[in-house]
Amino acid sequence: MGKVFVHATVTLDGFMADSQGGMDWMFGFDIVDKDMEAVKKVIDEIGAIVGGANETRTIEEGELPYGGSLKVPVYLMTHEAHEPVEKDGVTYSFVVDDIAAAVEAAKADAGDKSVSLLGGSISRQCLKLGLVDEIHLHVVPVLLGQGIALFGGLDTRITLERLHTAAYASETHMHYRVVR
Amino acid sequence: MGKVFVHATVTLDGFMADSQGGMDWMFGFDIVDKDMEAVKKVIDEIGAIVGGANETRTIEEGELPYGGSLKVPVYLMTHEAHEPVEKDGVTYSFVVDDIAAAVEAAKADAGDKSVSLLGGSISRQCLKLGLVDEIHLHVVPVLLGQGIALFGGLDTRITLERLHTAAYASETHMHYRVVR
Repeated sequence: MGKVFVHATVTLDGFMADSQGGMDWMFGFDIVDKDMEAVKKVIDEIGAIVGGANETRTIEEGELPYGGSLKVPVYLMTHEAHEPVEKDGVTYSFVVDDIAAAVEAAKADAGDKSVSLLGGSISRQCLKLGLVDEIHLHVVPVLLGQGIALFGGLDTRITLERLHTAAYASETHMHYRVVR
Repeated sequence: MGKVFVHATVTLDGFMADSQGGMDWMFGFDIVDKDMEAVKKVIDEIGAIVGGANETRTIEEGELPYGGSLKVPVYLMTHEAHEPVEKDGVTYSFVVDDIAAAVEAAKADAGDKSVSLLGGSISRQCLKLGLVDEIHLHVVPVLLGQGIALFGGLDTRITLERLHTAAYASETHMHYRVVR
C-alpha cells in the first residue's frame, strides 16, 4: 500500500500563496537540475491526488493540480455534489465533505504508489485525522510576511521524523515522516 | 563590521514556543555532535545580543539569553527605563523602544563579531527596518499547530539567499542572507 503525503512548495515563513492567492514569489530563484530531480522524485511517486474545494473552480480556468501534467486520478473536496470531469486524460472526481473517504478512494486508485495531498486545508484536515504518513516541502528563500499558510490553524501537535533534507541552489527539499 | 542576524530554534511550522511559552517540544529528538557544532559555529560568531522586553523579567528568574553562557553584552528592549544589570560577567542594558539604537549599540560592542537578535518581535521589527543581514534557523521536526511564531505578523516581503543548509540527525540548520 502506498503512502499519503502532504506536498507543498512554501516560503521560509510557511506560506503557499500570498494573501491574494498569488505565487509570483516562487519564481526568480536559481533552480538547478538536482532541484528538478528532487521534485520529480516526489512526483514520480504519486498515484493519485486529493485537492481542495477551491480547485474545483480552477479546472475550468485551466489551473490544474501539477499543471495537469500528472495523469493520475484527482479527488477534489467540495460541499456540493458534482459529476466527475474528464480532461486531457485525467479524471477529476468530486467528494462531498468526507475527506477520509476521498483519501481512501485515492489510496485504492494509487495502488503501490502514493497519494499527494494538495492545499493547506486538505493537508491540515488529514494531519488532524491521522491520515498523513509523510510531508514533502520545497522551501523557497523568501519571507512573504502574510499569505495563505500551509500549517496555519493546524491546532494539533504532531511529532515528525526527518527522513531527508537536500539543498542545491535556492530551494531546500525537506522530507519528513509523521510519527504515530 | 559584524553582521546582524536573527537566530532561532523553530518548529517546522515556524513556532518558537507553544501558546504558553513552553519549549518542551525542543527536546526528545536525536542530536549528534555535528548538530552541536552547527549551533556552536553560530554562537561563536556572536559579539552582542539584542533581546525582547519579556526577557527583562526573566533575568531575575534566571532564564537568560543562551542560558547566560555567552559572555557578551546583552541589550533588552523595554518600554520603561531600567538601570543596567550585571550578572555573572554579563551586562544587561535596557533600551527604551528605539530598536535601531539598540542594534547600533550592540554592533559597536560586537566589533568584528555579529549581533544576534532573539525573539519574534525583535526579529520582525529589525527585518522591517532593514537591519537584518542574515537568518540562522535550527528547525526541529515537530508541528506545534499553534504557538508563538517567529515570523508571524511580519507583514513585509523579504527576499533571501540561501547560504547553507545542513542536517545530520533531527534538526535542519538553515542559513540565509537578506537580499537588499
